[in-house]
Amino acid sequence: MEKLDYAAQDKWPRVSGNMQSPIALSDDLVVKNDFQTALSFNYNHIANYVRDTGAGIEVGLKGQAQLGNRPFSLKQFHIHTPSEHTINQQSYDAEIHFVHEAIDGRLAVVAAVVRAGNASATYDAVLQHMNETTNFEIPVNDIIPEDKEYYHYIGSLTTPPLTENVEWYVLKTPVTLSQEQIANLMIFYSHNNRDLQSLNDRTIVSSN
Amino acid sequence: MEKLDYAAQDKWPRVSGNMQSPIALSDDLVVKNDFQTALSFNYNHIANYVRDTGAGIEVGLKGQAQLGNRPFSLKQFHIHTPSEHTINQQSYDAEIHFVHEAIDGRLAVVAAVVRAGNASATYDAVLQHMNETTNFEIPVNDIIPEDKEYYHYIGSLTTPPLTENVEWYVLKTPVTLSQEQIANLMIFYSHNNRDLQSLNDRTIVSSN
Repeated sequence: MEKLDYAAQDKWPRVSGNMQSPIALSDDLVVKNDFQTALSFNYNHIANYVRDTGAGIEVGLKGQAQLGNRPFSLKQFHIHTPSEHTINQQSYDAEIHFVHEAIDGRLAVVAAVVRAGNASATYDAVLQHMNETTNFEIPVNDIIPEDKEYYHYIGSLTTPPLTENVEWYVLKTPVTLSQEQIANLMIFYSHNNRDLQSLNDRTIVSSN
Repeated sequence: MEKLDYAAQDKWPRVSGNMQSPIALSDDLVVKNDFQTALSFNYNHIANYVRDTGAGIEVGLKGQAQLGNRPFSLKQFHIHTPSEHTINQQSYDAEIHFVHEAIDGRLAVVAAVVRAGNASATYDAVLQHMNETTNFEIPVNDIIPEDKEYYHYIGSLTTPPLTENVEWYVLKTPVTLSQEQIANLMIFYSHNNRDLQSLNDRTIVSSN
């Protein structure tokens, strides 16, 4: 047995980059969860900015959420087109990321995939206030599905700095934008989804 | 506003290495926690191996713990001399790390700092079974303080691969080994504590 060299700590190998997002989610890969961790959301209905960050359209919305049995604060939400995660080999038209932070700095992202269907009043409000810094009302509830079953795994931010400390909660039930709204969204970004990353030895947990 | 180049994803910068352990814990730095997350432990009283890993003396002990409102499984505990974390500028004679994993792969380490005082029956049992792979009884309760107030932050493993996905719960109340036990422990490792790492922009949370 070779002893670890505490006199050469600056030479110790440091592993990172093996827990990146997005990933291909699949029911074939999941481990069922064995404790109750229902997600709940208490988001504001007043947003305070819409901006194009260069990585996507981002909306300033605050609020609270209970994720994995702990309180988190919503920082903002933003939209990727098409979806970043795939679910059972299926890609979606878009993916909305609700970015949260806990008191200890832990980041958690709730993702809602989007398919074409009914128009979203929230998206209309966002579009009307594009590049404005002003308070405006949004319903929000039309971009969060009623059924909050989810896939959970530990991954990363999907844009630089790609920080690997992120809890992901990808909602299984899609929400909808109209075909027209999706086409409008793609005027801003036709392709701001990061490539799928390797799962490596991570576990995907399912809420049911 | 420059758009993020999705055609050159392999060139995106990836930040890591800013959330390493151990750190200098200090009451001057902490943010008080605003929700109840008492720690509870239900560890076995039968261990199944003691080995010198090259980084320290490690004991095979399983069990369950509730950490940050979620269930974790104990994988093993091991000992560093002297302590790795400091608490209010104070170093301790040793530090015991209880390493846990959750169903999603999340790692959490509970640390108990050690000062000289009463002898530990647990340490005696460990010493008697050094380098054995056999079941033996250990009390365990004498290396976990009764008062379970803690400092919490997000850091890393303190030995390679130094993985940055680790929740730390450093117990505020020291446990004790006798002077003789500490001297014995230092025959194996006189100095297997990693250097203090920078806090950077992390938050330290206190349980009370």
